[in-house]
Amino acid sequence: MYHLTALVTLLAIAFYFFTCIYVSRSRSKTGVKAPAMSGHPDFERAFRIQMNTLEWMPIFLPALWLFAIYVSNAGAAAIGAVWIVGRIVYFIGYSQAAAKRGPGFAIQATAAIALWAGALGAVVLRLV
Amino acid sequence: MYHLTALVTLLAIAFYFFTCIYVSRSRSKTGVKAPAMSGHPDFERAFRIQMNTLEWMPIFLPALWLFAIYVSNAGAAAIGAVWIVGRIVYFIGYSQAAAKRGPGFAIQATAAIALWAGALGAVVLRLV
Amino acid sequence: MYHLTALVTLLAIAFYFFTCIYVSRSRSKTGVKAPAMSGHPDFERAFRIQMNTLEWMPIFLPALWLFAIYVSNAGAAAIGAVWIVGRIVYFIGYSQAAAKRGPGFAIQATAAIALWAGALGAVVLRLV
Repeated sequence: MYHLTALVTLLAIAFYFFTCIYVSRSRSKTGVKAPAMSGHPDFERAFRIQMNTLEWMPIFLPALWLFAIYVSNAGAAAIGAVWIVGRIVYFIGYSQAAAKRGPGFAIQATAAIALWAGALGAVVLRLV
Repeated sequence: MYHLTALVTLLAIAFYFFTCIYVSRSRSKTGVKAPAMSGHPDFERAFRIQMNTLEWMPIFLPALWLFAIYVSNAGAAAIGAVWIVGRIVYFIGYSQAAAKRGPGFAIQATAAIALWAGALGAVVLRLV
Repeated sequence: MYHLTALVTLLAIAFYFFTCIYVSRSRSKTGVKAPAMSGHPDFERAFRIQMNTLEWMPIFLPALWLFAIYVSNAGAAAIGAVWIVGRIVYFIGYSQAAAKRGPGFAIQATAAIALWAGALGAVVLRLV
């Protein structure tokens, strides 16, 4: 069983959910009414944080689970935890200024690509 | 095997697919040409319905399956069916007016959070 | 085990990742600064290519895996490969002009719907 990977999945979802709530709080603070998705830089940055996290979900979650299945459950959970940390750093940076979004982005991208590359290597090894 | 959860997954995807089709129908009705994503309130609401459903997919689907595996297949399918109903109520409300999007949103959020919390509790119990 | 389906999943993710990189390259080329998501037609088309690929991920990936589990691993991988080809054709067309996005879209939609319908049929057969 993959308890640790399941735990990291649920924590990643919880953080993503927090970015969604942050968008709706930012909506009330900045007065940008639904369905508008622009109109105030603070709201637009909040929305981009959520969107970017969403955009990486279909990379992160399948790579995390294929890594867990083909390589290591504990390894997947550890790298997945780094991904969440990168996402938190990205959130803190980008919510202050667009120019501060780089380091967190790099951490989470490295973690996600490591999961993807590890899974790909292991799958190809099984096929050849 | 998780036949009921698989069925609910495929029905949830089908409803989400319907919200995508509704956006492209709204594009022709309102004359908002691709790649523009704004320009007419009816189109913008249609797009937000699809987007919000998309935004909840990475919360709903992993929580649904972890609940099915760790707690109960029939329970996951039942709560998943409530999520779909909430999404339909949200669609009907929001497609009429932005102010009517609340009740459906609350139903689907409650269902998704119930799946998430149930799965988290069960995973943590296995780990301790 | 589902090695071929896992491989197609990782390749689909890799192509999606490429569409994300293409957006950020398009950002620098067209001078649309984050968090803005509009302002130049080339950037907007690049963004829509990524978004549309993202929008189909929660249809494609669950349908792919349920098809693999309920119908055929090799079949899922083969139809999944067609989906990736459709996505590449869509990318090439849409990056030139919005009017050229039709054929690739149709290929990937047909592949995704085939996976969905096959999985649904097989799940329903098990339940009745």
